Amino acid sequence: MKYPYQNSALPIQERVADLLGRLSLKEKVGQVNQHLYGWQTYHFDPATKAVQLTDDFTKHLDWGAGLGAIYGLFRADPWSKVDYANGVLPQDAWRVSNAIQHAAITHSRWGIPTLITEECPHGHQGLGGVSYPTNIGRGNSFDTDLIRESAHQMARELALKGVNLALVSTLDLAKDPRWGRTEECFGEDPILSARFSQAVVDGFQGNLIRPDHPFTADSTDEINKHSDQIGVVLKHCIAQGEAQGGHNSGTVVLGNREFSEVYHPLLQSVQNAAGIMAAYNDVDGIPCHINHHLLQDLVRDQYGFQGLVMADGTALDRLNDVFDDQTEAAGAALNAGVDLSLWDDTYTQIAAGIHAGKIDGQALDRAVAHVLSIKFLLGLFEHPYVSDPGHQLDDVIQSSQQVNEQLAAESITLVKNDGTLPLTGQPQNIAVIGPNANAYYNLLGDYTAPQSDQYQRKTIVSEIKREFPNATITYAQGCEIRNHQDQQRKIKTAISVAQNADVILLALGGSSARNFNMEFLRNGAVSSKGINMDSGENVDVADLSLGGEQLQLLKAISHLHKPTVAVMIQGRPYDLRPVLAVSNAVLVGWFPGQMGAVALAKLISGRYNPSGRLSLSYPLNSQQLPVYYYQRAVTKQDDYYDEQGQPLFNFGYGLSYTNFKYHDLTAQVTDRMLHVTLTVTNTGECSGNDSVLLFLKLHGGHVIQRKRMLRAFKHVTLAPHSGLRVRFELPLTSALFYNEHMQSQLADRLTISIGKQTVTVNL
Amino acid sequence: MKYPYQNSALPIQERVADLLGRLSLKEKVGQVNQHLYGWQTYHFDPATKAVQLTDDFTKHLDWGAGLGAIYGLFRADPWSKVDYANGVLPQDAWRVSNAIQHAAITHSRWGIPTLITEECPHGHQGLGGVSYPTNIGRGNSFDTDLIRESAHQMARELALKGVNLALVSTLDLAKDPRWGRTEECFGEDPILSARFSQAVVDGFQGNLIRPDHPFTADSTDEINKHSDQIGVVLKHCIAQGEAQGGHNSGTVVLGNREFSEVYHPLLQSVQNAAGIMAAYNDVDGIPCHINHHLLQDLVRDQYGFQGLVMADGTALDRLNDVFDDQTEAAGAALNAGVDLSLWDDTYTQIAAGIHAGKIDGQALDRAVAHVLSIKFLLGLFEHPYVSDPGHQLDDVIQSSQQVNEQLAAESITLVKNDGTLPLTGQPQNIAVIGPNANAYYNLLGDYTAPQSDQYQRKTIVSEIKREFPNATITYAQGCEIRNHQDQQRKIKTAISVAQNADVILLALGGSSARNFNMEFLRNGAVSSKGINMDSGENVDVADLSLGGEQLQLLKAISHLHKPTVAVMIQGRPYDLRPVLAVSNAVLVGWFPGQMGAVALAKLISGRYNPSGRLSLSYPLNSQQLPVYYYQRAVTKQDDYYDEQGQPLFNFGYGLSYTNFKYHDLTAQVTDRMLHVTLTVTNTGECSGNDSVLLFLKLHGGHVIQRKRMLRAFKHVTLAPHSGLRVRFELPLTSALFYNEHMQSQLADRLTISIGKQTVTVNL
Repeated sequence: MKYPYQNSALPIQERVADLLGRLSLKEKVGQVNQHLYGWQTYHFDPATKAVQLTDDFTKHLDWGAGLGAIYGLFRADPWSKVDYANGVLPQDAWRVSNAIQHAAITHSRWGIPTLITEECPHGHQGLGGVSYPTNIGRGNSFDTDLIRESAHQMARELALKGVNLALVSTLDLAKDPRWGRTEECFGEDPILSARFSQAVVDGFQGNLIRPDHPFTADSTDEINKHSDQIGVVLKHCIAQGEAQGGHNSGTVVLGNREFSEVYHPLLQSVQNAAGIMAAYNDVDGIPCHINHHLLQDLVRDQYGFQGLVMADGTALDRLNDVFDDQTEAAGAALNAGVDLSLWDDTYTQIAAGIHAGKIDGQALDRAVAHVLSIKFLLGLFEHPYVSDPGHQLDDVIQSSQQVNEQLAAESITLVKNDGTLPLTGQPQNIAVIGPNANAYYNLLGDYTAPQSDQYQRKTIVSEIKREFPNATITYAQGCEIRNHQDQQRKIKTAISVAQNADVILLALGGSSARNFNMEFLRNGAVSSKGINMDSGENVDVADLSLGGEQLQLLKAISHLHKPTVAVMIQGRPYDLRPVLAVSNAVLVGWFPGQMGAVALAKLISGRYNPSGRLSLSYPLNSQQLPVYYYQRAVTKQDDYYDEQGQPLFNFGYGLSYTNFKYHDLTAQVTDRMLHVTLTVTNTGECSGNDSVLLFLKLHGGHVIQRKRMLRAFKHVTLAPHSGLRVRFELPLTSALFYNEHMQSQLADRLTISIGKQTVTVNL
Repeated sequence: MKYPYQNSALPIQERVADLLGRLSLKEKVGQVNQHLYGWQTYHFDPATKAVQLTDDFTKHLDWGAGLGAIYGLFRADPWSKVDYANGVLPQDAWRVSNAIQHAAITHSRWGIPTLITEECPHGHQGLGGVSYPTNIGRGNSFDTDLIRESAHQMARELALKGVNLALVSTLDLAKDPRWGRTEECFGEDPILSARFSQAVVDGFQGNLIRPDHPFTADSTDEINKHSDQIGVVLKHCIAQGEAQGGHNSGTVVLGNREFSEVYHPLLQSVQNAAGIMAAYNDVDGIPCHINHHLLQDLVRDQYGFQGLVMADGTALDRLNDVFDDQTEAAGAALNAGVDLSLWDDTYTQIAAGIHAGKIDGQALDRAVAHVLSIKFLLGLFEHPYVSDPGHQLDDVIQSSQQVNEQLAAESITLVKNDGTLPLTGQPQNIAVIGPNANAYYNLLGDYTAPQSDQYQRKTIVSEIKREFPNATITYAQGCEIRNHQDQQRKIKTAISVAQNADVILLALGGSSARNFNMEFLRNGAVSSKGINMDSGENVDVADLSLGGEQLQLLKAISHLHKPTVAVMIQGRPYDLRPVLAVSNAVLVGWFPGQMGAVALAKLISGRYNPSGRLSLSYPLNSQQLPVYYYQRAVTKQDDYYDEQGQPLFNFGYGLSYTNFKYHDLTAQVTDRMLHVTLTVTNTGECSGNDSVLLFLKLHGGHVIQRKRMLRAFKHVTLAPHSGLRVRFELPLTSALFYNEHMQSQLADRLTISIGKQTVTVNL
């Protein structure tokens, strides 16, 4: 050991200071750049298992005298044009990671390893990656333990591939369903999203970073990272779901009180994360990428975040909305606290900016220090390489899929049932009809890799067949998602297929599935309009009606007057009224992931009992927006002349095959804690999960308080005819609000509500 | 003269101090209450001309030992149930005013007169009142002089009736067309609305209150009020048009920067007004009625407002959204700066609040002082009574109607014309079709009194007959505004009527006309759903499509393949695409007022040349909202998958029968002024008005600037083939923006654009 930075027994901050002092400007700039598309940096030969680096990559290693970070070595999708024909199989990923690490280390005078970052919004977006339900469904589970467990499974999978940081969506709120990225949100609620966000950090990182304790004061040895833990970068910071008009990365008008009440819980939730990604949008005119107040004062100083701040893809180049000069943009972003770039040219101009006196060298040093700290934290200086995972990867994937199926089952929400579900009456003929009935990719959502044959077979049709082995299952597409051409014949075929069925299963909705012939922007967002792809990043819609000829298909099916069960596969709410009107039961499946069809089939048969509760206020249509439930309780004209003001379904709505009764709600305040108890009884005939949602309405102050806000929730499982006393302990900080001077003030009085039970306590 | 307060030679502030010192608590409370509905306070006998006060009124006079203010002595409408059968004719109004003043004075130990306030959003809402186009049309005129002139006409009319304060809408912005009160806004633009707001003050008040000079330092004698000037109360303060979802009086989420950039120009525009009315809504959680920062720090301290602040109708009672206790609500409103109540019970509780120690006596004194100051300012202590107006009232009404017709003509906007308009080809047969073709009340908008027979004859049908005396004019209703029942027969009749026409005039749209059988809230807003009334206060809509069977009527008419001219009578934008698709020309008439049909007929014949320019970004529908033009210039996904992001027509759009060419735009900065010149040439064959709109785009700072903002405009008239050099002088304060620290900062660079001409200057 030659230098202090190489000593794993020293506190990280000392190693960082030592190494930083040795770095040239060129080397510093190299450390804050994550410039390349990872999948373009190498060729992998499956026969020889040899990894060959591209010239562009080695040139880039020379340029930066090392490598700050590299994104998406394994990203596989229509944008990257990586698929099973040319991509790396999971079991070979470690070879690529090691080769890249080796190149980074050997190109650095100081042997600095790189950060290998991968996209993981609902599972790893690489070949063979486990693809979980998208967030908009997972939010419906209200099951924090399961979210933590699924995150841990993702970490295990990625760790075996040599990945260091997973980029995971947890911070966006679904405030406008027109937004194409609604599917990436856990819902509209800040507390739910904050809890899930923390669960994701716990699942990925364990206690790698602990609250109120600076990890840089510890040594890498003391941190004792487990091999199945990796860092997580939570995205996006912040308020991206508030864009005016639901336009992707549009401007956000929010104001300090709304921002504080809604987004501070989320800013707090990133406390222990290794990283966060800044959001494309501005908040009240200030782009998040140059918002020092957000990235430093709030996230670090107020809420104790210790990780690195990553830019979103090419977002720094979009600062030309503000700056004429790219070095000025780079300076502003460094000053604000963006530590690491993503694909932009802006941060490649830092040296020029320093020479021109437009960038503060200290700001650069701060960014480099954050990047290096995370590398030390993750033990990369000591253990940059990973071993052949052998059978471990298969084991992980197998156990992940059990979690995945459970998560899918808990994500799916039953919103109507006249008793038709579950299909326990042993139907002889089931007709499975609709554009999402036999369309495996449509179940997965955006940010999904090409799938292996093994999973491609798991469609709703195939799984219904498996679940009802004694029934005859017939299938017709009925119509496509959005295509209006040539659909009449398809509808006709569907009707003839459905004619003899005992039960019709309709699988309708939308799709985020990208095709290899589509075009994409520099940041990977789709830029061409797929005729049957109506959701995901950059695919915002004005009208929430079901697309194509789905309404006509519905109408035609309804004329058969058969028991009809609808399954909605969707990344955003569509107008459900026409579906409700003609269906005996409706399951909102969202994009339920690789195991989604399995879970759906088991829910339909009754092997699973639905427990999903809507994590957003489900609108009638986009004409009544916004309808999120925690608006202020003002005297206003609630209804429109031509439409009700209330959403179709309230936040938290969802049915079960059994019944849960709530009683004996009590609340008392002692020692600055609010103690709430409630008895939940399963009064029905089958076992089931229930999510017990505790809402607070505050009273007091000179501010109009919100109607109510979720403050705690518990996911419980109850056998038939059994009861459970559920206890919540909330710190009284839950009863704080921002008064007219934007000072934090305790409410005079609280109304606590769980279901229809309410109780009021004075504070 | 016994007391100093009676001495008109003393400065008003001394008189106020003297009188205030003499008042008992009871008397003070009386002065800040405007509790009663004026029309319920008396009976007028048209035969004897006797005014008899009701018992409730005299009881109220006793309760307050006088009368602070009285609203709506002459309000006539379906809510008040006052019409020509039981109301007071204009020429008798003075008798009522005098009787009320007499009662107020004699019930006060100190002989304090009352403030007689009347509703005047687009003309006096009393019998015989001149009813001008609603604001949403007037905004399209961009004619500040004409707005000032029309305000002056209203003042003359009201002064002769003994009215002291007119309540006039000028401050609301049309940010969401779903809002039923969109018709009360001059449009979406803050600068346009601010200029018009100032013009309204000038027109009503002349220089009764001057900027930067405290009127209370002058004596009533010095102020020398003219008999044709009255005070104006501008409403509403502030941001009511920003309510989430377009819900009337809904919550507003805006934030400090947006609020400052958009609403400060409007707060500044009230500088010289005798009064402002607080808005129902909250801004970022703080109800305007308890917002001290708004009503004191900004409006008074920063922008120099000297008048009184009036509550909106029953708005103080709605403070139960915040306070359990009505005296607390009263205390908070007094502290914030609400000086005068409106119909609420809250301010009747002030004495109880003082006794209970919940209200600060100084806050009450401040309010009383503001009320008294305005009474002194208006010379009411010296001249509380008005004389018989004799023929003057008829003269005023006659000259008003000339202004009214011109304003209507300038309000109406031609948005499509393939050359069909004007109808100079002497058509033989004109079919006038549609629910607004022969519906006079539908032309007027909300807040309109019952009309005399003289005006009720002025429908589009009648005026087309008058304008085309040699043509045969046929008429059919075609369908109703919103009714779906029994419309097929009407459509059929319309088709047979239109069959033989040379030209079809279609009069479509909506209506704010209230009927006497409707129900109303305590604040006069309609609460029952009229089947053909789809606009105005409390009538928000979700869907901007034309109502009823209008689209079917359009389709049926289009099958006749005849030259078709559509006239839209509406208080908000409806989806115009189906109308544009089948019409050769389209005039957006808004609610054009009593002379609207006259103006429309003359525009159609070519006697007038259209010059209206849209004062809002005209949306396609409500699914793409918001579309206001001054959003921030961010890189975003502009278009939806299923719809364009851009509005149907841009702010400022509007056609003429001639063509205006813009050239030779120059700009330079000297002495902290921006000097802009531009040549406008009328290159066509007829004379016309043009509104020259100057937009600025700012550059610089760390904030994403807005795409552009209107900063100045001029309304010019040009003979054919003539040109005009238009000059603008703007203070450089137009180039200020709020930087990331919310400090005011000058832009580095400005792009000035007028039409397609642009020029950039460095600052």
